[in-house]
Amino acid sequence: LKLFKSRIYTAILLLGCVLVIGVFGYRFMSGYSWVDSLYMTVITITTVGFGEVQPLDEYSKVFTVFLILASVVIVGFAISVITEYILSKNNLEELKQK
Amino acid sequence: LKLFKSRIYTAILLLGCVLVIGVFGYRFMSGYSWVDSLYMTVITITTVGFGEVQPLDEYSKVFTVFLILASVVIVGFAISVITEYILSKNNLEELKQK
Amino acid sequence: LKLFKSRIYTAILLLGCVLVIGVFGYRFMSGYSWVDSLYMTVITITTVGFGEVQPLDEYSKVFTVFLILASVVIVGFAISVITEYILSKNNLEELKQK
Amino acid sequence: LKLFKSRIYTAILLLGCVLVIGVFGYRFMSGYSWVDSLYMTVITITTVGFGEVQPLDEYSKVFTVFLILASVVIVGFAISVITEYILSKNNLEELKQK
Ligand SMILES: [K+]
Ligand SMILES: [K+]
Repeated sequence: LKLFKSRIYTAILLLGCVLVIGVFGYRFMSGYSWVDSLYMTVITITTVGFGEVQPLDEYSKVFTVFLILASVVIVGFAISVITEYILSKNNLEELKQK
Repeated sequence: LKLFKSRIYTAILLLGCVLVIGVFGYRFMSGYSWVDSLYMTVITITTVGFGEVQPLDEYSKVFTVFLILASVVIVGFAISVITEYILSKNNLEELKQK
Repeated sequence: LKLFKSRIYTAILLLGCVLVIGVFGYRFMSGYSWVDSLYMTVITITTVGFGEVQPLDEYSKVFTVFLILASVVIVGFAISVITEYILSKNNLEELKQK
Repeated sequence: LKLFKSRIYTAILLLGCVLVIGVFGYRFMSGYSWVDSLYMTVITITTVGFGEVQPLDEYSKVFTVFLILASVVIVGFAISVITEYILSKNNLEELKQK
């Protein structure tokens, strides 16, 4: 159980890193304001994707591609860990019932 | 089983709250019409994200960020509860087969 | 097993209905071309959401809200059925191993 | 376990194929630059969907519809395989505990 919790914390920490990298990336690479950088990062990571706040240059597009891929991999990892956690909790309850 | 159902109802109720908060937020904060507010809230919560119906000011963007994060957390909670429900129903059937 | 398959077929059939309703809705309600209607329906149901092909009037927005909600409910139902199917298949294999 | 790993590799390989087909499709069918083609393909497959980089003609829209449907089916297959993998790993641990 401790193992799962530390892995869930790892996933949350990684997502936090991606959020911070995203905000700083859009702030200094694409010249967005702080609010726009946060807004752009959140709509990118959560795949809401309303649209680019301001048009992106080539470097910002490549940056966005890596941001999306990183968040997809981390969210996938987080879902796997949570699924395994629910399953193992379920098994423990099952064993207790016997 | 009753525990799961009450938690699923909690998740649905919370989603309903987010929907209502979203509609009122866009109606009075961003000056959208009622239909546009509903449309904007639904495309935000479901991550369809066609694009902002009308450009958002800074406050509305921060509001949108919180709306997205709230709905992501609630949807994640709902999926967890439903997964646990399916698993425990599955275990009961398994026990009956023995 | 037959029960699961019939429910998966129900989910696929319902998704097909939503697709057809979406295409006809955008074709005759919003005046889109056939290709644009298909394109709009697919990016709506899959939550890709590039943006409205042409601006939508109030009725088309309400129609889109219902289309999104219907597809979210049906996709959720489909995922539940598939999860239950994988779980029960898994249980059968487990029982065989004993 | 080997069976699962080969199926996960199949899913990753198929996703890679869709990525390559997408990039070449947007490059030569819609006349996008290489960076724009990669950007467009990634925001399409991950359903971020910021919006079309440049307006698409009818053929490119039909191409996009197939790209979206292919990636949805493959991602669905990948999630199924990963779920089955986690479940069978879980069962093995359960058997060991007995
Ligand atoms: K969009
Ligand atoms: K989207």
